[in-house]
Formats: sequence, structure tokens, C-alpha cells
Amino acid sequence: MNAMEKDIQKNRLASLNIPSLTGGRYSAEAPYSPSPVSALDRWMARKLLDLLGQPPLAFVLWNGEQISPSGVVPAVRVVLHDSEVLHQLLINPALHFGDLYTAGRIDIEGDLVDFLEIAYRAADSSPKYQKLKNAQTRLFYRPRKNQPKDSRDNIHHHYDIGNNFYELWLDREAMQYTCAYFPSPDLTLEQAQRAKMDHVCRKLRLKPGNRVVEAGCGWGGLARHMARHYGVKVRAYNISRQQIVYARAQAKAESLDGSVEYIEDDYRNITGEFDNFVSVGMLEHVGPNHYRELGDVIDRCLLPHGYGLIHSIGRNKAEPINAWIEKRIFPGSYPPTLREMMEVFETRQFSVLDVENLRLHYAKTLEHWIARFNRHTEKIEQMYDRAFIRAWQLYLAGSLAGFAVGTLQLFQVVFARRTNNDIPWSRAHLYREP
Amino acid sequence: MNAMEKDIQKNRLASLNIPSLTGGRYSAEAPYSPSPVSALDRWMARKLLDLLGQPPLAFVLWNGEQISPSGVVPAVRVVLHDSEVLHQLLINPALHFGDLYTAGRIDIEGDLVDFLEIAYRAADSSPKYQKLKNAQTRLFYRPRKNQPKDSRDNIHHHYDIGNNFYELWLDREAMQYTCAYFPSPDLTLEQAQRAKMDHVCRKLRLKPGNRVVEAGCGWGGLARHMARHYGVKVRAYNISRQQIVYARAQAKAESLDGSVEYIEDDYRNITGEFDNFVSVGMLEHVGPNHYRELGDVIDRCLLPHGYGLIHSIGRNKAEPINAWIEKRIFPGSYPPTLREMMEVFETRQFSVLDVENLRLHYAKTLEHWIARFNRHTEKIEQMYDRAFIRAWQLYLAGSLAGFAVGTLQLFQVVFARRTNNDIPWSRAHLYREP
Repeated sequence: MNAMEKDIQKNRLASLNIPSLTGGRYSAEAPYSPSPVSALDRWMARKLLDLLGQPPLAFVLWNGEQISPSGVVPAVRVVLHDSEVLHQLLINPALHFGDLYTAGRIDIEGDLVDFLEIAYRAADSSPKYQKLKNAQTRLFYRPRKNQPKDSRDNIHHHYDIGNNFYELWLDREAMQYTCAYFPSPDLTLEQAQRAKMDHVCRKLRLKPGNRVVEAGCGWGGLARHMARHYGVKVRAYNISRQQIVYARAQAKAESLDGSVEYIEDDYRNITGEFDNFVSVGMLEHVGPNHYRELGDVIDRCLLPHGYGLIHSIGRNKAEPINAWIEKRIFPGSYPPTLREMMEVFETRQFSVLDVENLRLHYAKTLEHWIARFNRHTEKIEQMYDRAFIRAWQLYLAGSLAGFAVGTLQLFQVVFARRTNNDIPWSRAHLYREP
Repeated sequence: MNAMEKDIQKNRLASLNIPSLTGGRYSAEAPYSPSPVSALDRWMARKLLDLLGQPPLAFVLWNGEQISPSGVVPAVRVVLHDSEVLHQLLINPALHFGDLYTAGRIDIEGDLVDFLEIAYRAADSSPKYQKLKNAQTRLFYRPRKNQPKDSRDNIHHHYDIGNNFYELWLDREAMQYTCAYFPSPDLTLEQAQRAKMDHVCRKLRLKPGNRVVEAGCGWGGLARHMARHYGVKVRAYNISRQQIVYARAQAKAESLDGSVEYIEDDYRNITGEFDNFVSVGMLEHVGPNHYRELGDVIDRCLLPHGYGLIHSIGRNKAEPINAWIEKRIFPGSYPPTLREMMEVFETRQFSVLDVENLRLHYAKTLEHWIARFNRHTEKIEQMYDRAFIRAWQLYLAGSLAGFAVGTLQLFQVVFARRTNNDIPWSRAHLYREP
């Protein structure tokens, strides 16, 4: 990394707004302090457990005192380093937990994913917690907008923090920052990302010479894969500057720049006519208010016989994304329910042909990412700082827990125009070796 | 058919309220009459063509005069036998066409399905027609209710008109009055209905010993198939008396009455706990106001590891069913969009795992049904009358056209509880030979 790149990364980091570590401490350093614990502190800790329906968790207060539901063997211990932490958790646990953990004012003794799975399950089945969450959503939920200018800022915030950072832990071949496909769970991450791309290409029924448009192409790996292995021409759109720069360089290095064109522009500005429309991992950033616009774009650019696929994180039940994730990690993002996704298709009467839920595939993908991320924490700390690492570990672990517990889903939706009767009689072709 | 059965059928027929043939005539008898045609008649015929956006159709008036869009070679000729027909078509084509055709006051020269496909495509892409249809929906659409008592009447109206009638044209083995599955389009109807039942059973991942509940079981063929070939115990619910009687007799004859129990009751009264919930072709009769109730029923009866499947006619875009079909054929019925179907799943947070659209399979199924139906028209006319035959031919042809043109869809939705992580890594098991 040269000096200029380093400088860019420092600026990006500032834009993440990750809270400073002032006042924070890490378990590795000094887990317990002799500061006094008041009756109010104990009451608040018990109140939190009560709010979560008495889950198998223990709070360890800053003097080492442990508070846990009676008759329950705690699976994970949550170490709180000061009294203020309890106040903040009671006010808005979903939002403040992330910042407090990032700042080192909360630590987890035990596995972070285990803890988050327990907490998500508990929160989800506790009527008291749901009531609190709904009230907080009404009071505080103000999702960022996704007009073209907002979208650029939102995407920049997450995707432009340094290609070399993502290279450390994504698959080496195609830099896929989206759910992989594990037809067998023991595939490597590289194999599973290749399998994902092939699964998508088969669902799209790509034929040599097809013109394909991709909305939100990341580092361009899928576009290059389609061009190389399926003989198609791809126009791939993205508003992340750094991703486009990387994608173009890679296409040139692989002599694919004749068949793949990367365009730094918003999906709303897609022009041309195409045999296939594909979008993997963009819908989460589009925002429900813009689904109809996306449907209009597809209607404008898909040929009568065309096939399309949208791959997106989703939900079983409509609710905003975790407040901390929306604030610190993915501004403006929203994982839709299938019902909400239908807004893309219904106005223009696209026919939904196939929906596959790959939730557990994303959990598996995240296991791989987390293992790789954790192998590079020293290097990442040099690039950014400790708070950055803790924030990202929490975000990745929280995502894994969400997919494992089922608060998050992953939908692949295949669609065509209503009038298109060139539809295979079965989906067996997806499962035949090529 | 004994005298009592004959009597039952006469009563059922009366309840169909199919308009009498008084004043009607058939093309086979006397296609043209010398009655005068006025300038207003010609204007109305042209107005109708204009409303449909000048489709490749010709109106043949009762004196033999032909009116068709200029510069268009008509693919089908629509013979109108009197002036009143034109009035009624202009007032409410979707509703009155069916009754006028049934009464023999309209005839089609050419293939009935071809005509309906042309008419549906034309209507669908004509803004004028859509405007008229929306106005008519607002003014006249009063779908029948689906409270338990209403549901009984609605189901009775269609399904209790005589088992021996349905035996004439449904598949011989399992009497499936729902979309078959043609993994290869040249299967026989019997093979395709067996393939459908196996496809459903594989999607449900049935294991020997499973307890299965079926909501809306028709003549019980799927329940018997599951019990015989998958070793499961089935409780199958239906409110059609005649279907239940038939299903019980059949189960006894096949020595399956130990593993299949047919219950004459509403889906809302399902009790017990089950490994699988399955419903093939019932949701169309449930009505959108009751989807949440259906979700509650599933939530009450599905075990934590359970798998469910709902198979239903659907739409790409929300709109009422054809007025004539709702009035004469399927009172209270409504084919939902996927978005609307999600109401069943979302409140209880069921996870949608797989959606497959089998639209063209229903078109193919209807081709088989129509061919068989037409081989038995003489016999059916003896059982009912000519108007009955024309109404049914129109209903079956209209359904075929709807699926072929894409105004109707067929969705198979597989779901599980959100917390169920026992999900296969791929859907390849659906496509392996057992």
C-alpha cells in the first residue's frame, strides 16, 4: 500500500464514524476493576435479562460480580466495563451494543457468534423486547434516503474503504462480497463462490452471444465469470469508484475488456437492451421506495424473451435493519421480505418463475469470511485500528448469527416477462453437470 | 348412475344457475338469420373491436355480414346471433360473454382456445379495455364471502356436481383436479399427475412414519399416494361431501383406510400436530381475507421441524377473477399474487424456502382435460344438457388460454418454520431418480 492509498484509507475510516476508543478497554488488558457496583446497577443488569426473557447469558459487572437468570447455566458471559454501559443498553440495546462493543466497553467471554445467536433468539421470542424494539423503531428509525446522490454516499461509506482490505478475506478468485453457494457444505470458499456464479448463470440460461446487464457489480467477478465461461457480453454498473477501478484493471489483465464493460453509474441510468438482467447483492441498498423504479429500469432494458435474476438478503417479516448496522456499516440498507420484493415485479407484470432461499449458505459463507478475517487481524489493525476490527468482527458475527437464527434470509428470484413462454419444463438443468 | 344419483345431479345442475337456452341457438343449427342489421349494430361491433385494440378477430353478424379491423386477417370469427348480444358485450364483456356463449347466442368459428388467447392478449394490452374493466370491477365486483358456511356453499356448487362426471376426463388413477407436472411435455396425463404428486412429496421431504395434514384434499388421490408410496399417515380435510364419500370408499378399496383419514370439515378446524402440511389447489378458494387465519392454522399444527407446501393458481398482478367464472363456475374464488400469498406466511414468520412457477404445466394439463372432455360430450349432455357442456368448454378453454397467455400463474411454495435449520444444501434431490 503506497502513501496515497494509506491516506485514502484514513479518510475512509474517518467516514465510518466508528467511535473512538477513549475510555474503552479490552478484556485482554484488564477485565475487572474494583469500582463499586450499586444496587441500581444490579437492578439494571437484571432488568436487561428480564427484557430478553431470561436467556442463558451472564452479565459480569466491572468488579467481577456475575448476574445471570436463576436456574440457567450461562453459555456465554458478557463483561460490562462500567455502569454507563448498562444505562445505554437499557435505552437502546440494538443501537448501543455495537458502539459499546466496538469501543471495548463490553467484552464477550465465549464465542461472539454463540452470544449473538442466543441474544437474537432471546430478543425475538421475548414479547417485552419486541415491544421495546417497536417503540424504538417508531421513535428513532430514520433510514437514510436512496436518491442517486444519497446512494453514492451510502455505497462509498462501505465499499470504498480499500480493495486490499477486502482482498484479505474474500475469495481469491472473484472477490465475491455476496452469499456463496455450497451444494456440498465442505466446498472451499473459492469453490462455493464459483458454484454460486454458475448457479446464477444457469438460472439465467445464458447462451453464447447474450447481452447481459448487471446492476451493482462489486469488484466485477461475476461479470468476468459470465464472459469467460458463458461467452456473453456484459455491461456492469456500479457506483463504487474503487470497485470499478479494480474491476477494469482485472478485466484488462484477464483480456476480458473486449467483452465486459464496467460503467460507474447508478442502476437508474442503465441504458440499452439486454437478453439478461442480473443483480446480486444490490437490492439491499436500493430501498423499498425505489423498487418500482428498479422494475421500470428492468422493463426498459429486458428484451421480450429475456431472463432476469435478483439475489438479495431478505426477511420473513418486514422490519428495519439493526440500528447499529444501518448507522455504522450499511447506511440506507434494508433487507426486504418477499412480499416487499414483489413491488419490483408486480407493476410491470414480470412473472416470478423461481425463488430459492439460500439462508444457510450465507451463514456458511460468513464462517469462511470470519475465519479469514481473524487470520489477518494484525495486518488489518495496521491498516486501520482496533476499533475498526472490533466493529467488523461484530458486524460479520452478527450477520452470521442472523442467517443461522433466521432473522435474515437470502432470496434468489428468477423472473421473465409474462408473455415469455420459452420456459424449461423443469429445473433439472440447474443440477446436471455441464 | 342410479335414479337417486341422477336426481342429485339435477339438483346440483339447478344450483349452477346456468342460463337456459331459451332464445339460444347453435352454429350447428342455423348460423345466420335474415334479421336486419342496423347502423347502430355495426357501430357497436366496431366499438367492441376498438375497445380491444383492433385484434385479429372478425365479428360475424346474424345476417352473415362480417366486421373486422381493417388491414388485419382475422384468425377467428365470432358469430353473434342477435342484436342484444352486442349491447350486453358492450356493457360488461367479461361477465356477459360467458352467459351468451353458454346460451348459444355467440359461436366461435375456429378454435375456442385460440379465440380466447387472442381476446385475452388484446384486452390485456388495450388501455381502453383496462379502463373499462377497472370501472366495472369498482361498480360490480362483489366477491362472495368465505366464512365457513359460505365456503361450504361455494365448494358444493362446483365439486358436488357428480363424481362420475369428473371421472370422465380427469386422470384415471388419482382424480387430480389440479395442475399436473410435466418434466417432459410428452408424458400422459396419468404419468404427469403421478409426477406432480411425487414432486410435491419430494419437496415436503416425506419420511416413513411422518404425520401429514392435507387441507382441501379433493377426491383424496394425493393422500393415498403419500400413504402408499411414502409410508406416511395422512389426515385429509375437505368440505365437499361427494369428494369425501368417494375418497373414503377408494381408500378402503385400496386397503389404505388404516393410514389415511378423510375428515369432512373446514381447514379452520384442523386439529393435531403434524410433520407436514400440504394444500394443493385450496388457496384459490380461501380468499385473501382469510390468509392470516390459514397461517394461524399452520402455525398451530406444524411441528418445529415440519415442512409445508402450498400449491395454488396465482397472478402476476392483483386483480379479481373473471366475473363470469366467479359467478357461474367458482364462487368465492380468487387467485392471489405471490405478494398476497405472503400474508399466509409473514405474520407467523414462516420461512419461504422454494417457489416454483408451473404455469405452462397447467396449460398442458388443461389440453389433456379438454381433449378427454370433448371425447365424452355426448355422455355429458345426457347427464346434464347442452348449456352445461358449453359453459364447461368455455371455462376449461378460458383457463388454458389464461395459463398460456400468462394472466394466470401456478405457484408451488415450500416453507418451514424460521427456526428450522434442517434444510437440504441444494434442491438436487428433487431431480434425482428415487
